Amino acid sequence: MTMRNIYVKNTPLAEARKKWHSALSACGFYTKVLTETVSVDDCLGRITAEPIFAHRSSPAHNASAMDGISVNFADLAAASEASPVILPPEKFQQVNTGNAIPEGFNAVVMIEDVHFLDNGGAQLHMPATPWQHIRTIGEDIVATELILPEGHRIRPIDQGAMLATGVTTIPVQRKPKATVIPTGSELIQPDAAPKPGEIIEFNSRILAGYLQDWGADAHRHKPVQDDPDLLRAALKKAAAENDLVVLNAGASAGTRDYSASVLAEIGDVIVHGVAIKPGKPVILAIIDNTPVVGLPGYPVSAVLTMRIFVKEMLAKLLNHDLDQHGHIEATMSRPVHSAMGVDEFVRITLGRVGQTLMATPAGKGAGAVMSLVRGDGLLTIPAGNEGVGAGEKVSIELLRPKAEVDATLVFIGSHDNILDLMANQLHREKPFTRISSAHVGSMGGIMAIRRNEAHMAGCHLLDEATGEYNIPFIKRLLPNVPLQLINLCYREQGLMLAKGNPHNISGFSDMVNRNLMFINRQGGAGTRLLTDKVMGDLGIPPEQLAGYDHEEYTHMSVAAAVASGSADAGMGIRAAAMALGLDFVPVTEERYDLIIPALFIKDPKVIKVLELIRTNTMFHQKILALGGYDLRDIGQIMYQQN
Amino acid sequence: MTMRNIYVKNTPLAEARKKWHSALSACGFYTKVLTETVSVDDCLGRITAEPIFAHRSSPAHNASAMDGISVNFADLAAASEASPVILPPEKFQQVNTGNAIPEGFNAVVMIEDVHFLDNGGAQLHMPATPWQHIRTIGEDIVATELILPEGHRIRPIDQGAMLATGVTTIPVQRKPKATVIPTGSELIQPDAAPKPGEIIEFNSRILAGYLQDWGADAHRHKPVQDDPDLLRAALKKAAAENDLVVLNAGASAGTRDYSASVLAEIGDVIVHGVAIKPGKPVILAIIDNTPVVGLPGYPVSAVLTMRIFVKEMLAKLLNHDLDQHGHIEATMSRPVHSAMGVDEFVRITLGRVGQTLMATPAGKGAGAVMSLVRGDGLLTIPAGNEGVGAGEKVSIELLRPKAEVDATLVFIGSHDNILDLMANQLHREKPFTRISSAHVGSMGGIMAIRRNEAHMAGCHLLDEATGEYNIPFIKRLLPNVPLQLINLCYREQGLMLAKGNPHNISGFSDMVNRNLMFINRQGGAGTRLLTDKVMGDLGIPPEQLAGYDHEEYTHMSVAAAVASGSADAGMGIRAAAMALGLDFVPVTEERYDLIIPALFIKDPKVIKVLELIRTNTMFHQKILALGGYDLRDIGQIMYQQN
Repeated sequence: MTMRNIYVKNTPLAEARKKWHSALSACGFYTKVLTETVSVDDCLGRITAEPIFAHRSSPAHNASAMDGISVNFADLAAASEASPVILPPEKFQQVNTGNAIPEGFNAVVMIEDVHFLDNGGAQLHMPATPWQHIRTIGEDIVATELILPEGHRIRPIDQGAMLATGVTTIPVQRKPKATVIPTGSELIQPDAAPKPGEIIEFNSRILAGYLQDWGADAHRHKPVQDDPDLLRAALKKAAAENDLVVLNAGASAGTRDYSASVLAEIGDVIVHGVAIKPGKPVILAIIDNTPVVGLPGYPVSAVLTMRIFVKEMLAKLLNHDLDQHGHIEATMSRPVHSAMGVDEFVRITLGRVGQTLMATPAGKGAGAVMSLVRGDGLLTIPAGNEGVGAGEKVSIELLRPKAEVDATLVFIGSHDNILDLMANQLHREKPFTRISSAHVGSMGGIMAIRRNEAHMAGCHLLDEATGEYNIPFIKRLLPNVPLQLINLCYREQGLMLAKGNPHNISGFSDMVNRNLMFINRQGGAGTRLLTDKVMGDLGIPPEQLAGYDHEEYTHMSVAAAVASGSADAGMGIRAAAMALGLDFVPVTEERYDLIIPALFIKDPKVIKVLELIRTNTMFHQKILALGGYDLRDIGQIMYQQN
Repeated sequence: MTMRNIYVKNTPLAEARKKWHSALSACGFYTKVLTETVSVDDCLGRITAEPIFAHRSSPAHNASAMDGISVNFADLAAASEASPVILPPEKFQQVNTGNAIPEGFNAVVMIEDVHFLDNGGAQLHMPATPWQHIRTIGEDIVATELILPEGHRIRPIDQGAMLATGVTTIPVQRKPKATVIPTGSELIQPDAAPKPGEIIEFNSRILAGYLQDWGADAHRHKPVQDDPDLLRAALKKAAAENDLVVLNAGASAGTRDYSASVLAEIGDVIVHGVAIKPGKPVILAIIDNTPVVGLPGYPVSAVLTMRIFVKEMLAKLLNHDLDQHGHIEATMSRPVHSAMGVDEFVRITLGRVGQTLMATPAGKGAGAVMSLVRGDGLLTIPAGNEGVGAGEKVSIELLRPKAEVDATLVFIGSHDNILDLMANQLHREKPFTRISSAHVGSMGGIMAIRRNEAHMAGCHLLDEATGEYNIPFIKRLLPNVPLQLINLCYREQGLMLAKGNPHNISGFSDMVNRNLMFINRQGGAGTRLLTDKVMGDLGIPPEQLAGYDHEEYTHMSVAAAVASGSADAGMGIRAAAMALGLDFVPVTEERYDLIIPALFIKDPKVIKVLELIRTNTMFHQKILALGGYDLRDIGQIMYQQN
């Protein structure tokens, strides 16, 4: 067997932070002089590195503030409506706004108050006060006065103020130079289709993007193969040319992870392994006074770990506040358990349903990029804590502006492909509505409505006894909740099969007879109940169907498993089969409704949804194009409970 | 006389807006297709022009979620601590995180749970569940699912999600192209020193900067001379090449303003003149379906007018919310009168003193760029209103983040050059403190403390009867206010004179005898009282001193008037004279103290100021370098009132 270095330490986060910051201080990272001189024309958004003082006064000369004539105020002392004063041409001079006040004059009379005479003179009906309508030198700012303090982010008006006072170049913070080095022989570029075992290299783009957002001049290194010599050379060069190096992957303990040993060889490893989740195998090292941060390979782990160690470094170096969206208090909708001794970072979905802002833990997969795309916030469970309970108040670090969270309609329940179309359409309109949808099946949606955690739930539950959809379940499970049940669609359910139906499957019996692999939906899903009913009608017990225990959470995941060959068939809607080009054997048509509590029926976000499904024929066309839908009752109230 | 076109209309704002928006709709401005295709690598911060769907599933294949071995879960059904199962080499395969699951395997066992045997086999002590530690195909997202809705600003994680699913180029909003054309023969570039009557061209930089901030691809045209032929040619070309043209200056009614007539000749003038203040002479026109907005020449008028007409256009075109910092409720500290029939836009300084957020109208000058640099917000007084009263609650549009407003220490009172140094030093530290200072003289500062409108006031008032500074005034004017009087400095006051003292002035008597021009400070300023005392002691009545009635508000403004030759002498501090290289004849040394109400002595911002003046010796060195200061009592409590 290959040697494995599986002994990554478990340094507590606080201790790791402390060690790292001492090391950074010792290597002079925080005292770097990061200054460069730029033209004021090019300094928008940059940060002043020194206080900026006016070079010249503005205005630079006494100037007319009006269109009119410049006069000597003493000449008009006697002027009145009854006995106007007539000035001969040499006693006044015409000026436009901005013109210099000619020598010997000390007031301006507005053009509207001047009666010009044919002989070139001017008749005036009012006295003037000294310096009236004159912008005196330095009225706005006097040479040597402070225009902008150090550490100020430059706005367009600031550029104008500097240029107005003769400041044309200024010292600004130079952006620290950072390079992200992806490592791994399995990495391929995003334009190629990955073969099994190949991984698309997109982490370096995400990491460089955040470094850029945090004020660095970030670059991407080309991927380095799993070869200690290549890695050593790349790290040495990057450390010499950058203020900060981020190394991605190669920090855990797989067979081909050389990062730690190479870093120990050419630099000082300050910390290897921190008691955080996700992100444990992080490496913090210094090569020739340049900090190198080795991040785990999973995108979510890499991003969260970089936020913990690198964001703070840049905030301190640049003297910035990088807490973009702030924190918000929310109430946990369910408990999260966490191991003692580990600082855990949990992605959170937020939804304001009624008065309460509910925080729900999002998907846990460390590879799940979409969980960060969709995530609204981060919850930190400190090492000294075993977790948080349902109903507990927590502080959430926002990952998106609060306004977007407030604009979020919370949809929990059964999954349908129409939701993507709906989410996009509502996001287009202004002010936009975001849809946050959790696909927990029809029963999960009903429970969310009961706990008051969702604005609406999607539901397609067939009551075997009555043959009726949804209403019997509502009567039984939501007896006291005033609500409306509104139809979204009828849709075809059936078996999704590989393209061309190579096994010639026409139903469940073929599956069992030929020992083919099924893929199922999770318990509580309407589609699971349908599957069980169909199998029951055929007299097929679950244990006879291979793969019955392998569960997925959406029609699309089932379709993907069939498309990849992991399974030979799965139950789902025609739209999902069509999306992935699968064959489809129809089993039944079912009704899919929206449960909306009366409490939210007048919520502007809900009103928008209802308007969309009831009146937007373009939207209807798009649904029908997905395949397998019938919209004969769309928007109709199927049942109401007061 | 030259012909003048002084008849600019006074269209009410609401009507102007309506006309303009109909014209924009009619010329197709809002329905422009603004789309371009960019590489996902280059799309950070751009806005999606269409919904983005996954091209491929992610993961693209079933892959190991751990470092370990892939197995068939059925082979381990019987494994336990007591009777481990031994797998021969052909029944498992080693996998690293991310590796594809080899054909025929359906579970992964973590490396930590595997005991490798010398014969190449693996000993296992636990059963495995189907698909354990396997990331199944499409676990994160399935091909054809929605990644990002239309109109979404792309973040680094979004780039990762797109690349992970094979999306490498996307349609994004093309930025509308805008050009700013400055006009006027008097304009010079910022690197030259302006001669009388010349104006530095910096408006186009400010305007292009804001257009950029609002999402346009903004460019600056070179200045166009006051020549209708040149202007006509420039406008025609710009309209053909841009989505939007901004013309600056030439919109009022001076002798050489050709904008309106040229626009009428080559396009349609929709509105010329709107009942707004500032910004009345705005021109809204269309040339060949391209909107052209003619803005007034004064920078503040130009910026405010562009905010009113152009920001809205871009927000609507790009379907963005451009209200950057939101609105805030504040209480007016003094009344603002406004003409009926005119929508007035008032720059506001905000300060949270105690519980109340006070809004104070800032400087009114339309040319005062610094008033917008320093301004915190904008108050709109609608046309139907005669103004707002003191104590009235108003809604203020924020021009800077609320956090900066909350970090503001409000200083009202006498001006001293140390304030610039202090403002810079406090801004450097984190969290920073901003100083907003209003220079209204020592008496104005005392009154602000009385009205509870300032955290501190600067004061240098000599009581003639006792020869004592400040304390007698506090006892008389602030008898019931618990406070501390803390010394900032002693400073030299004297006559500031042109460099080299060409008139050989040694005191006020020389000024009167030679009929030289004085420049005074405003009533209520400590320096004004000092001037009056010195003149009184010399027996000089005000009317004998030319220029006695010409008032300025700061030492630096007086120094600037002397430096420019507008006046021959003015009273002020040595630091101001030194800053502008003036001669200085000392008159007296005076004491300058800070009045701080007991209520604010523990305010973190005040604590920072006191720490700075009491302990920062570098700061002391910088003060002494200004000239004319003595810091023998800096930070000492001179008087206390409980």
